[in-house]
Amino acid sequence: MVISLGKDDPRRVIHSFKVGLALILISILQYFRPSFYAFGDNIMWAVLTVVLVLEFSVGATLGKGLNRVLATGLAGAFGVSIRRIASFSGDKGKAVLTSMFVFFIAGTVTFMRFSPRLKASYDYGLIIFILTFCLVSLSDNTENELLEVAQERLLTIIIGSCIAIVVSICICPVWIGQDLHNQIAGNIQKLADFLEGFGDEYFNNLGNTEEAAGDNKPFFHRYESVLSSKGSEETMAVLARWEPCHGGFRFHHPWKQYLKVGNQIRLCAYKIKALSVFLLRSEQTPYELRNRIQEPCTNISMESGMALKESLLILKHMTKSSMPNPHVANAKNAAESLKSVLRTNPWEGADHLEIIPAATVASLLIDIVICVENICEAVDELATLANFVPSELLHRGTVQPISNSDGLVHVISVAE
Amino acid sequence: MVISLGKDDPRRVIHSFKVGLALILISILQYFRPSFYAFGDNIMWAVLTVVLVLEFSVGATLGKGLNRVLATGLAGAFGVSIRRIASFSGDKGKAVLTSMFVFFIAGTVTFMRFSPRLKASYDYGLIIFILTFCLVSLSDNTENELLEVAQERLLTIIIGSCIAIVVSICICPVWIGQDLHNQIAGNIQKLADFLEGFGDEYFNNLGNTEEAAGDNKPFFHRYESVLSSKGSEETMAVLARWEPCHGGFRFHHPWKQYLKVGNQIRLCAYKIKALSVFLLRSEQTPYELRNRIQEPCTNISMESGMALKESLLILKHMTKSSMPNPHVANAKNAAESLKSVLRTNPWEGADHLEIIPAATVASLLIDIVICVENICEAVDELATLANFVPSELLHRGTVQPISNSDGLVHVISVAE
Repeated sequence: MVISLGKDDPRRVIHSFKVGLALILISILQYFRPSFYAFGDNIMWAVLTVVLVLEFSVGATLGKGLNRVLATGLAGAFGVSIRRIASFSGDKGKAVLTSMFVFFIAGTVTFMRFSPRLKASYDYGLIIFILTFCLVSLSDNTENELLEVAQERLLTIIIGSCIAIVVSICICPVWIGQDLHNQIAGNIQKLADFLEGFGDEYFNNLGNTEEAAGDNKPFFHRYESVLSSKGSEETMAVLARWEPCHGGFRFHHPWKQYLKVGNQIRLCAYKIKALSVFLLRSEQTPYELRNRIQEPCTNISMESGMALKESLLILKHMTKSSMPNPHVANAKNAAESLKSVLRTNPWEGADHLEIIPAATVASLLIDIVICVENICEAVDELATLANFVPSELLHRGTVQPISNSDGLVHVISVAE
Repeated sequence: MVISLGKDDPRRVIHSFKVGLALILISILQYFRPSFYAFGDNIMWAVLTVVLVLEFSVGATLGKGLNRVLATGLAGAFGVSIRRIASFSGDKGKAVLTSMFVFFIAGTVTFMRFSPRLKASYDYGLIIFILTFCLVSLSDNTENELLEVAQERLLTIIIGSCIAIVVSICICPVWIGQDLHNQIAGNIQKLADFLEGFGDEYFNNLGNTEEAAGDNKPFFHRYESVLSSKGSEETMAVLARWEPCHGGFRFHHPWKQYLKVGNQIRLCAYKIKALSVFLLRSEQTPYELRNRIQEPCTNISMESGMALKESLLILKHMTKSSMPNPHVANAKNAAESLKSVLRTNPWEGADHLEIIPAATVASLLIDIVICVENICEAVDELATLANFVPSELLHRGTVQPISNSDGLVHVISVAE
């Protein structure tokens, strides 16, 4: 199990190394600069910060690091002011007043954590705010001691956060934005694989055993992970917003559009889920009846799959195509020709109970064309919002052969 | 927005009070027993523990509290042993050896956090283990000082955890197990509402405008939240395992079975998602054609909805029924009668393009009966695994009228 964990994603092993390394950096810092850690316990805050802030992805690390530093700074300043206000009211009054402030502020900030918007990006900061505020308010130290301790701690936390962020970015960084991009692309691929395979599988099944249909072909099940991908995509999009410019991704990359694409992908996956039951039941409709809508249906599923793969290319190469996706048009034409086949009443006289499964497949396939078109449009919109490079500039250039003096011919032709 | 946050779930307001209260308890403890906090900074660990451990639900609080205490104890003992081993190898050797241990152990435990099984229940413990282990190993203190500090800290953390757990359980406890139970019941309710309403809505639509169909009835959209409920159910089931006996729930309540029920509910929701498009398109099939399968289809959807509501009663009252769910049998009969209607080829001669939407509805409804049966079976299994009380003992008792001396007749009849 341990080996498969590492094999599934080797970046996990690297991350474990990174955590170890960051801690060693902290201990080296302590070893060579004991004067810096005048307050013996302060190294603790650097260790705490590194362990808690250094996350698997750069986005999460940056988000937590910034949250931690800002929240500590703000809460510290706030706590000191509250202490000053409370100190005006005598010794006993001070204790009561401080408790009231702690109760009120900790309660309010805890309540703020329930707001979905704040929770998504600033949950860690809010906890750290409560924590620091309580520590400063409830501390026994005199104000001067406190200010000194607070400054050193803030500095240690900043150092800890910086080490975590530097290690996270400089050593094999894991960009969560890239992961989200890849996951969306992977999900499109899964749907495309299903659709490209569906036509042949459904229509060429001559009534074999149930097990034979689809169960031995893993790509007929891979799309299932798409059905429950909503949560992970949303988390990734939130974390990706913290990440600086990297690869083809800018700081203000339109991460929200990925969620829209993801939603369209899921809507299509729900349809595919409904379609998939018929793979196991293709023999309910005799082959001669299925046969009558075979061509347009196979075309629809094949062209839908290819349309998705065309969109996949846009994501993979991060290029924008100025031409409309030809396979979407083909799929729509295939849907129209399926409709005209149906208008000829191909199953006239057949048993309705036998034709209903095939009719349902036809109906779902027509719906899937709409879903696929929506996915492709959402991807095109993403390409526009994210300023992907027009693909003409990258791929369609052809360099004419040049004969130079020594008679050699260089032919460079780049095409996708 | 603030008000709606509180209105949606008033327990959020109570939770905020609880956090404030727990912090005040800590500060009172500090105020009255300053001798206990000999090491001035140690109150910090109690504050830290309360803020981090006191979660919204009892399950989460207990899980985090136990994780924190156990991990701190274990890591402390482990760290002290490592220091002892390292101290055999001189001053310089000690620093190098300690760094190596920190690197190796922090890396290994970080890697363990990627295991989905450990992550689900023990993620917090693993982080605390790394943290405490590093703090103990990298501390500058002599061994005797360290042991003293470590003991006090462990004690403070235990006190903090206990306060958090007591506050969580004693003041308006939020049992996440109860929440999971309610969420599953709520999801069944949503599907049942849709199914009970579907038949009338689809078949009595005489070709009105698109907006009219379903859009003004919110219960046709409520089921959509079920589609993406997988993640939250899994989290809840993990947290519920920490909760002690409460209400009708034992410590070893079969929480995993709730996930199975949840999966069956989602499979049904995917089908309903496919069905729901036809609400908007009912006029594609002329009323006279829809009309021919109206009775069995309406029966299927109505009886499926009632079957789900029957299962809902099992969950709501936590009772076990010894009789099979009558509505499941009715729904299956309705499906059979739909099939026999279809065998009579009701749409003979009609345009295939017009009948296909209605045929798809028929086909999806037949599938939904299977899904509903699976849901009901999973709920029955849950009732058996969780030892729900047989409903006969509770509801079917009828007390015969008793004439007493003063001629009054008491008739008590209890029936569900």
